[in-house]
Amino acid sequence: MRNIKLTIEFDGTEFVGWQIQPGGLRTVQGVMTEAISRFTSAGMGGEDVKVTGVGRTDSGVHARAYVLNFLTTTNIPTEGFVKGLNAELPDDVFVKSAEDVSLEFNARRDAKKKTYLYRIVNSGHRRSPLERNRAWSVEEPLDIELMKEAAAVLVGKKDFTSFCAAGSCVSTFVREIFSFTVKDLGDGLIELEVSGGGFLKYMVRIMVGNIVMVGAGKLTIDELRTIIEARDREVASITAPSRGLYFKEVEY
Amino acid sequence: MRNIKLTIEFDGTEFVGWQIQPGGLRTVQGVMTEAISRFTSAGMGGEDVKVTGVGRTDSGVHARAYVLNFLTTTNIPTEGFVKGLNAELPDDVFVKSAEDVSLEFNARRDAKKKTYLYRIVNSGHRRSPLERNRAWSVEEPLDIELMKEAAAVLVGKKDFTSFCAAGSCVSTFVREIFSFTVKDLGDGLIELEVSGGGFLKYMVRIMVGNIVMVGAGKLTIDELRTIIEARDREVASITAPSRGLYFKEVEY
Repeated sequence: MRNIKLTIEFDGTEFVGWQIQPGGLRTVQGVMTEAISRFTSAGMGGEDVKVTGVGRTDSGVHARAYVLNFLTTTNIPTEGFVKGLNAELPDDVFVKSAEDVSLEFNARRDAKKKTYLYRIVNSGHRRSPLERNRAWSVEEPLDIELMKEAAAVLVGKKDFTSFCAAGSCVSTFVREIFSFTVKDLGDGLIELEVSGGGFLKYMVRIMVGNIVMVGAGKLTIDELRTIIEARDREVASITAPSRGLYFKEVEY
Repeated sequence: MRNIKLTIEFDGTEFVGWQIQPGGLRTVQGVMTEAISRFTSAGMGGEDVKVTGVGRTDSGVHARAYVLNFLTTTNIPTEGFVKGLNAELPDDVFVKSAEDVSLEFNARRDAKKKTYLYRIVNSGHRRSPLERNRAWSVEEPLDIELMKEAAAVLVGKKDFTSFCAAGSCVSTFVREIFSFTVKDLGDGLIELEVSGGGFLKYMVRIMVGNIVMVGAGKLTIDELRTIIEARDREVASITAPSRGLYFKEVEY
């Protein structure tokens, strides 16, 4: 038995997220499971592959280096997975690398640090054809210094109940944010980058939504602190759209 | 009679280019002409609008700030064109600004300086889902310093016959390139920017193709000079794909 770790890039626009859904909805896990099953079983009878991803992603969220693993009995050379799977996969998914790892490795359980990017277009326009599935177009001018301050307030080990989707079932709402930066890339492009040990459902998007409200002058830093302290899923109502969010990388 | 100048952004992926084509192919000029006709004639009977663009673009080429103009008798306020047309236009086209200009202004004839961008992904992978309609993925490592040298060789007033699509009918192949820069944006992204008084058919894409060949070590700077001097449409056979090309801006 072997354990294969893959790093993939995907455009999330045409997916309802990573996790397999009932009703035939298109998911990255579904597409990967199908491609891996077809590839590893070629001419040797089917293999029932179970693909474990680093975590769920929302519908429309992208990934630059998402990690997954699966057990297989095939003796295909490791490098063969890259070429072979890419030949099977559609345009919006691509295997960047493959690795043979120890049988104990689990892409979800062993993740130590996850990093997300969020892209915002802030050029005074309501929408941008070129960035329509790649970023959030915010029309009102954003104060990047204020956004940096807001992001800094969110760093640390905290109870993030206020930044969690309603209806999400977890045993604890405490998560640790290692860093949260806001960069002006020029030409109206703003890029946020957040690293943490783990994230609650919608947590990155709700944090980004609130940072943008601060940048737009609609929420003060003090009000943001009050939202954190409230530990109430109803107080932070602004969720940034999924199309601007990218799973950037994970460390094990 | 009024003359309206519009600046638009478009994602060229689903267009066969700017210019109206026979056979119902989807063009930016066609979509704009239809939207403007519908908008200016609302409730007042049809107006036969003729839309003039700054220039042709190839199928798949994008634009950040493409300029067009048209004559109209409507008394809609200038700002109304932005909101009104954007309400009519599909997701992949957007009017960024509208201006009333003198009746003599012609978007094509009066252009003094045009600037194009070309985006290349050079991260060691054959393709990138996220950049698949936005950049050219070049797998072999590119030497950016060599590419800068190659770009510099193309600057100036020259006979660009070697950089013109076969079958293109023009009275002279002499064009002036004002500047040609190559920038490393990090994360494997390379951006080329070229400004000139005007360009021949496929000229930017053939120039980029040859600069990439230099960067990949498959063409020397001396060989590039020989290609320019040859004034022969057959010698420079490499045309960069249209998906990486953006009409950036025009000065009048």
